[in-house]
Amino acid sequence: MTSYAVKAFGTKASDADLEQLTIQRRNPTPKDVEIEILFCGVCHSDLHTARNDWGGTKYPAVPGHEIVGRVKSVGSAVSKHQVGDLVGVGCIVDSCHTCASCQQDLEQYCLNGFVGTYNGKDAHLGGQTYGGYAETVVVDESYVLRVPKHLDLAAVSPLLCAGITTWSPLRHWNVKEGSKVAVIGLGGLGHMAIKLAKGLGASVTLFSRSENKIQDAKDLGADEVIISTNAEEMKGAAGKFDLIIDTVPYAHDVNPYIATLTINGTLVLVGYLGPLDPMLHTVPMIMGRRSVAGSVIGGIAETQEMLDFCGEHNIVSEIELINMQDINGSYERMLKSDVKYRFVIDMASLKN
Amino acid sequence: MTSYAVKAFGTKASDADLEQLTIQRRNPTPKDVEIEILFCGVCHSDLHTARNDWGGTKYPAVPGHEIVGRVKSVGSAVSKHQVGDLVGVGCIVDSCHTCASCQQDLEQYCLNGFVGTYNGKDAHLGGQTYGGYAETVVVDESYVLRVPKHLDLAAVSPLLCAGITTWSPLRHWNVKEGSKVAVIGLGGLGHMAIKLAKGLGASVTLFSRSENKIQDAKDLGADEVIISTNAEEMKGAAGKFDLIIDTVPYAHDVNPYIATLTINGTLVLVGYLGPLDPMLHTVPMIMGRRSVAGSVIGGIAETQEMLDFCGEHNIVSEIELINMQDINGSYERMLKSDVKYRFVIDMASLKN
Repeated sequence: MTSYAVKAFGTKASDADLEQLTIQRRNPTPKDVEIEILFCGVCHSDLHTARNDWGGTKYPAVPGHEIVGRVKSVGSAVSKHQVGDLVGVGCIVDSCHTCASCQQDLEQYCLNGFVGTYNGKDAHLGGQTYGGYAETVVVDESYVLRVPKHLDLAAVSPLLCAGITTWSPLRHWNVKEGSKVAVIGLGGLGHMAIKLAKGLGASVTLFSRSENKIQDAKDLGADEVIISTNAEEMKGAAGKFDLIIDTVPYAHDVNPYIATLTINGTLVLVGYLGPLDPMLHTVPMIMGRRSVAGSVIGGIAETQEMLDFCGEHNIVSEIELINMQDINGSYERMLKSDVKYRFVIDMASLKN
Repeated sequence: MTSYAVKAFGTKASDADLEQLTIQRRNPTPKDVEIEILFCGVCHSDLHTARNDWGGTKYPAVPGHEIVGRVKSVGSAVSKHQVGDLVGVGCIVDSCHTCASCQQDLEQYCLNGFVGTYNGKDAHLGGQTYGGYAETVVVDESYVLRVPKHLDLAAVSPLLCAGITTWSPLRHWNVKEGSKVAVIGLGGLGHMAIKLAKGLGASVTLFSRSENKIQDAKDLGADEVIISTNAEEMKGAAGKFDLIIDTVPYAHDVNPYIATLTINGTLVLVGYLGPLDPMLHTVPMIMGRRSVAGSVIGGIAETQEMLDFCGEHNIVSEIELINMQDINGSYERMLKSDVKYRFVIDMASLKN
C-alpha cells in the first residue's frame, strides 16, 4: 500500500518528551476519507499512552483521538462525506463489523477488539496507528462523523471522547426529563457529564471534595454541589440519585456514593481502571437492588447522535486552546488537574 | 391488644439450643388472617438470627419465614382469604404502604423498613415478631399468599424465601426463552435458581467447585456445569451469560465470573452480605458495560406471581422433611452444606 509523509507530534520512548516527527499516512483507499486536522483535544489517555502507564505502548507514539477537521479528499466509493465537510474522528477507526456487538452498533465493545485511533494495529501499513497530533488522518468513512457547522470547532473536539464517554451511559441508563443524576469529579469527563445530563432534562448534582468547585459546577449547569467529605451533606443525599456517573480516574471509595442511589439506581464507572479499593460492600447493593457498572466511550451511531444533540442544544466543551509545541507543559498541568476543562491543540500551530 | 398462647420453638440466647417455648400471638384484628402452620422451611437466616451472627437479634428468637399453612380464622374485614384456604407467609409481614417502593409493589425495599416475619418490630404486641416455628401465625391479609393446592405443600415452603430470592432477579433482569443464565453455588437458593430459570425458558449453567455436583445439577434441569476451579473451563465460558445469580453465602472472588458475562451482562449477588474480597476489578466492567448488582427476596405481588408460576409449571423445592425437635442437629448439618437442598419442618411434630 502506498503512503505519504506528514508532520506529527509524538514520542519515541516512555520517558521522552513529545517532539515533531514525520509519520506515514496511507494513500486513501476507495472507502477512505482523508482529513486535514484542524483541532485535536488532549485526553488523559494520550498522556498515559505516551508514558506507557498502561503498558503496551508502541513507539513512536502519536496520541490524539478527539479530532475535528475538514475533508481533504475522499476515495471513489465514499458516499457519506464530501470534500470540504467538517468532520470528526474519535477513539475508534475500525472494528470487525461482524460480531454481536458491532451488529448492534456497539463497536466500542467489538468482541474482536476495535482498532484504536492511536496505538492500535494498523491493518493497512502495519505497525501501530497514529493519532490526531498530525497534519492529516486517513479513516474509513464508516468511522468518520459529521460535525455541526455552527459550533465552535475547537470546543467540539473533546466531545469525541469526553463527550461520548459520558453520553453513552446517560443514554444507556435512560436519563430523561426529571431524572436525578449525580456526577463524581469535575474534570474533562465530569464537566461534559453535567452539560449533557442537563441537556437531557435531568436535575444534576456534582459530588466534589472541593468547595471551590461549587461556583464552577453551577456555572456549567449543575443544580447542586455536595461536598463529599462533609458527612452531613452525604447523609442528606441518601437514596437520591437514579444514576451516578463516576469520572474519578484513580482508586477511591465508592461505598459512600452507593448509599446515595435510589432503589434500582446505578453507579457507572467511566474513569478508573483498576481494583475497587477499598472493597465494595454488598449490603447497600442487596438491600436496594443497586448496581455498580462500567462503560467505555460509545459506538459510532451513538457518537453521531451525541454530536447532533450537541448541535441542537449548543453544547460544547470548555477548553483552553494551546499550540502543538505546548503539549509537554500541558501534560504536566493535566497531572495537576490544572485545566478548565480540556486542552485542545490548534493544529495550525504544527505548520510553524 | 388481646393475645393467646401458642407452642413454638426458639432460643433464649445466641449460644443456646432451640427449645420449646410458649409465645403470644395477637387475637386477629379485622384485617388479620390466623394461620395454622403446616410446614416451615429452614433458611440460613434462621440460623444466623438464632445465633446473633448479624447482631441485633432479640431473644427469645423464634425463626421461620418459609411458612405454609391453612387459614384457621379471618378478621371481619378480610376479603382475600377464607377459612380453610392453603396459604403462605414469607419474609415480610408488614411495610409502610406509602413510600415510593411500597407504591411500586417493592415492599422488600420499603424505605421505612419492612417488618420481618421474625425479629422485626411487632407493632401490635410490642417486642419482636416471632416466626413460623410455631403452631400458628397471625398476619395482615395483604402479606398472606395463595398457595397452589396441587403442589406438595411441604416442598412449597422454601419457595417463600429461597424461591422468591432467585425469582425476583430473574424477572427484574428479564430472563426469558433463550436467555443464558448461570447460577453460582448449588444450595437452597442455587437449586431454586436452576429450576426457576429453566421454567422461564433460559439455558442454565451451574458454576460449582465440586465435580460431584454435576449430576445433581443436571437432575435439577441444568444444561451444563462448569467447574469454577478449572481454568480452561472458565476461559471457555468467557462472554457467555446474560445474567449470573450468585448464591454463594461467604466472601468469594467474583472477578472470574464477571469475565463470563456478555456485553451488558449482570452478576446479581443474593447470598453474601459483606465486602467484596478480593477487590472487584473495574476493567472487565468498563470494557463490557457489565454490572454487579444485589437483590433481596421480592415483593408480595411478585411472590404471588412466583407461586402461581410454580403451580403452572409444577415447580417445588427439593427438601428433607424433619421434625421440630430435630432443628438443632439440622442447623449443624446446614453449616456443613449437608442437605439437599432445604430442610422443612413438619409442624405437626410440634404437637408431640
